[in-house]
Amino acid sequence: MKPLIHDLLNNPLSGQQIEDRSFAIIDQETPAHAFTPEQWPVVRRMVHTTADFSLLDMVRFSSDAIEAACRALRSGAPIYADSNMIRSGLSQARLKKVCPTYQPESILCHVADSDIAAIARQKALPRSLFAVRKAANKLHGGIAVFGNAPVALLELNRMIQETGLRPALVIGMPVGFVHVVESKQELMEMGVPYITIEGRRGGSPLAVSVIHALCELALADSDKD
Amino acid sequence: MKPLIHDLLNNPLSGQQIEDRSFAIIDQETPAHAFTPEQWPVVRRMVHTTADFSLLDMVRFSSDAIEAACRALRSGAPIYADSNMIRSGLSQARLKKVCPTYQPESILCHVADSDIAAIARQKALPRSLFAVRKAANKLHGGIAVFGNAPVALLELNRMIQETGLRPALVIGMPVGFVHVVESKQELMEMGVPYITIEGRRGGSPLAVSVIHALCELALADSDKD
Repeated sequence: MKPLIHDLLNNPLSGQQIEDRSFAIIDQETPAHAFTPEQWPVVRRMVHTTADFSLLDMVRFSSDAIEAACRALRSGAPIYADSNMIRSGLSQARLKKVCPTYQPESILCHVADSDIAAIARQKALPRSLFAVRKAANKLHGGIAVFGNAPVALLELNRMIQETGLRPALVIGMPVGFVHVVESKQELMEMGVPYITIEGRRGGSPLAVSVIHALCELALADSDKD
Repeated sequence: MKPLIHDLLNNPLSGQQIEDRSFAIIDQETPAHAFTPEQWPVVRRMVHTTADFSLLDMVRFSSDAIEAACRALRSGAPIYADSNMIRSGLSQARLKKVCPTYQPESILCHVADSDIAAIARQKALPRSLFAVRKAANKLHGGIAVFGNAPVALLELNRMIQETGLRPALVIGMPVGFVHVVESKQELMEMGVPYITIEGRRGGSPLAVSVIHALCELALADSDKD
């Protein structure tokens, strides 16, 4: 067997060098696409997170998404996540670089709350629906991040339409086979800033990678001020 | 706009119904494949987690993987995860169904430990390398789960080869462009039970879905006793 590991330890790369080399490979292998210079760093980080170039055909931005995202992140807008995996994947350090007063409590996820479990059991509906409803106040002007539960996105869409709720940005990337395609189609018609993946694909790491890419854009943007 | 959300609330599906319907769609759309009846539930849950049938061409099992996994889970073997996203995605309830004495402390992840950050900075090497090294004692007979860091998998491979470390099972699903392909190729030559994804693809939700599918297999298996 080729002793690869010895090669690693004799010719070590730091985390930063691995990331730089990864992005160089992505740039080399990326086919032609129609993303704007502001959108591309977001899609590029999604490819970095999944090693899947097929996403290039599926990612969709509202025209105001990047600007709205930078504004929200710089103002320290609360983030509602549909899964605790997203909450644990989000880098507090990156959020704090963009908004130095950002607090861990500003990242919310109610899906594991005991009151949510109780009402979901009682109504025989998914917990994610009641979890996002519980966050309604924070979501007005906040950032909604979905990498898991299409039902949460459908419920957010309902609140936007029926209650006038206006999130600063919706990252709509639930994944799966039931309610998923419709939840994203509906999101794109809501008139709020969004970033989404058309079709069935999605996931928590993708949603996290979008926030992290947006943090870099927000930071680069403030450097220009 | 078609009011999809009202349709959801008027014709609600519970979480369990959504999952059942999802698996029915997967079964309907799955092309012919060569997985054994024991392996298939694992791959099926990976497809459920990603909505991506292209994984069918990439998932690899050692011949002893399922049996070794069931034995380890039923004995409450510790789990080392390479990311906190995995730790937060793993269902304590599922693990406890298989092994009633399972404790939250049996799921380990050292990547965010302060001693690990310090030594990684000092040596200019990735934190994931020192994190998995710190877990060596628990990994002998434990379950190693990688959904992120190929360097952690390379370091585990080194420990297997050089120190005689023997994990009960390695779920090797790091993702990305640098060290990833080699880390998995090497794993498949180590002589330990493994489940992996050949190539660049992988991710924390995939690694979590494999553990959850294995819990179901371990449970079904004990029912037969």
